Amino acid sequence: MTINRKIVLAARPRGLPQTSDFRLEQAPLPAPGPGELLLRTEWLSLDPYMRNLMEEVGPGYADPVALGAVMVGGTVSRVLQSRHAQYKEGDLVVAGAGWQDYALSDGSGLLPAGDLAQPSLALGGLGMPGFTAYVGLLDIGAPRAGETVVVGAATGAVGAVVGQIARLKGARVVGIAGGPDKCRYAVEQLGFDACLDHRDPQLADKLAAACPDGIDVYFESVGGAVFNAVHPLLNLNARVPVCGFIAHYNDKAAPGPDRLPGWMATVLSRRIRMQGFIILDHYATRFDAFRRDMAAWVADGSIRLPEDVVPGLENAPQAFIGLLQGKNLGKLVVRVNAP
Amino acid sequence: MTINRKIVLAARPRGLPQTSDFRLEQAPLPAPGPGELLLRTEWLSLDPYMRNLMEEVGPGYADPVALGAVMVGGTVSRVLQSRHAQYKEGDLVVAGAGWQDYALSDGSGLLPAGDLAQPSLALGGLGMPGFTAYVGLLDIGAPRAGETVVVGAATGAVGAVVGQIARLKGARVVGIAGGPDKCRYAVEQLGFDACLDHRDPQLADKLAAACPDGIDVYFESVGGAVFNAVHPLLNLNARVPVCGFIAHYNDKAAPGPDRLPGWMATVLSRRIRMQGFIILDHYATRFDAFRRDMAAWVADGSIRLPEDVVPGLENAPQAFIGLLQGKNLGKLVVRVNAP
Repeated sequence: MTINRKIVLAARPRGLPQTSDFRLEQAPLPAPGPGELLLRTEWLSLDPYMRNLMEEVGPGYADPVALGAVMVGGTVSRVLQSRHAQYKEGDLVVAGAGWQDYALSDGSGLLPAGDLAQPSLALGGLGMPGFTAYVGLLDIGAPRAGETVVVGAATGAVGAVVGQIARLKGARVVGIAGGPDKCRYAVEQLGFDACLDHRDPQLADKLAAACPDGIDVYFESVGGAVFNAVHPLLNLNARVPVCGFIAHYNDKAAPGPDRLPGWMATVLSRRIRMQGFIILDHYATRFDAFRRDMAAWVADGSIRLPEDVVPGLENAPQAFIGLLQGKNLGKLVVRVNAP
Repeated sequence: MTINRKIVLAARPRGLPQTSDFRLEQAPLPAPGPGELLLRTEWLSLDPYMRNLMEEVGPGYADPVALGAVMVGGTVSRVLQSRHAQYKEGDLVVAGAGWQDYALSDGSGLLPAGDLAQPSLALGGLGMPGFTAYVGLLDIGAPRAGETVVVGAATGAVGAVVGQIARLKGARVVGIAGGPDKCRYAVEQLGFDACLDHRDPQLADKLAAACPDGIDVYFESVGGAVFNAVHPLLNLNARVPVCGFIAHYNDKAAPGPDRLPGWMATVLSRRIRMQGFIILDHYATRFDAFRRDMAAWVADGSIRLPEDVVPGLENAPQAFIGLLQGKNLGKLVVRVNAP
């Protein structure tokens, strides 16, 4: 009998998750009913938003994971058995099958993965994180040629794409990342104009030096010290798309000083537009344009999509904890099962 | 010899200004040179932004007032002598003559006050505060019929207009103001659907009850406890135009907790658009439309413009301090000189 391994939420984390907050369980392989598909996970995406789904109260854009339930996650999955008219055995699909080997699906929310030479990209630069970068940067940030764009987590799944699209649009791009290796990668491999280490005690001064004309777009996904360094450099009419605040996802308390009044004073005096967005809202209107543009940019070499591949479903919890600590370089994916 | 009384900045305030931060000085009446006008102040506007100009470092949108210099302020002034081709003796103009009886002008920045029966309105509902309400609410807040709009300082110069325009656009309007008299005024005289006292320890619960469908537009001019009460009630895709943060203008330190991470999480999960604006940016493009609309609304009685009139230039400092404490009801103006 084939066994389905699944990683469930064992406990709600306090602060940074521990491996003991997850539990590997085994169960018999489910069988598809009429209209259903049996999917086998080939690739699992690990993304910062999952941390928010581990809280008892969800973030609003998605339901929290129940205790004992399979961790939620995007996957590239193979159709093993199909009792669904639109899919046949052997099809590769982008699904939300979660942290497990197998899953049933009624077909809702599935997308064909197409014939990508590197199917895991459908979870990264050609999928949700890349789409997040595209919509946030182009539709909210709207950089003009010659403007300065700053992005944190510069070698992460979203940040790497933000910076490269901004360069294509003629902006000066300054990344912020964790450690000299990532910074070197951002400049040498991704074409950023500069990249600074967020652990550098001189970050604020170095960012000011790297942005002699100030900052016009700050793509916010990080918070913390990066936000503090960016804040005084924002130009009149700067735009701040907000797709995350990862430095604070593990926060339980937020000791002072209270940064909100100072931030509001800046929003006012510099006429800043800050806008949060959840990428789920934009698939209907913008995904086709994104896929067309991004596929072309990847094909002609204008955009590189670095990946950090972790072998084995059992390693997903530790890899996810590392993601929250900034240990990955590029999009973090788990190789769950070979074809 | 006629004497010009002027109120100068004597000291930079720490926290709430004291009357000793101001000084009344007297000087001989200046004489206009070629191309200049001598203006006599009839009405002086007192506005919260002036607090920001008392700091050593200005807020960015205007220069700080130098120590010993006349306090900055909008005025309705009469042309006493003219050596300027466009103005003649007796004309009434909207000027920025500051806290003094007389001022010279080279004509730049002057606007004709027109033939208003109540010329001080050119400093209030028909001037900068009304224009602030109009642009912030309509261009950034963009309320739709049936949506809920919340505005603090509901009987202040800006808030009273925000609420009344929002009602005209079919929104449900909930004001927040200081004390039962102001709240009653907002509902009975200005037509707000509800108005709550920001000093009420139950403010958060009462605001939730007054906004059963949540909040779609929060016109931010206040900060502090009002912001905290509004925050959890903001709906998906809510808009937050920011024209001020008066509760914090006197803050020197900002003790914890740090509200910024929580606010960013809300901006993200509820896709909030927060946008600061400085009304000076919008005169060229929107002032004509504003004056046309507002004049019509005032003429047909759709909008009321309450005023709080203080007699005598010498009382301006105390009145301004009271403004920062929320003691006024309606637009605060000083009757400096009768025609």
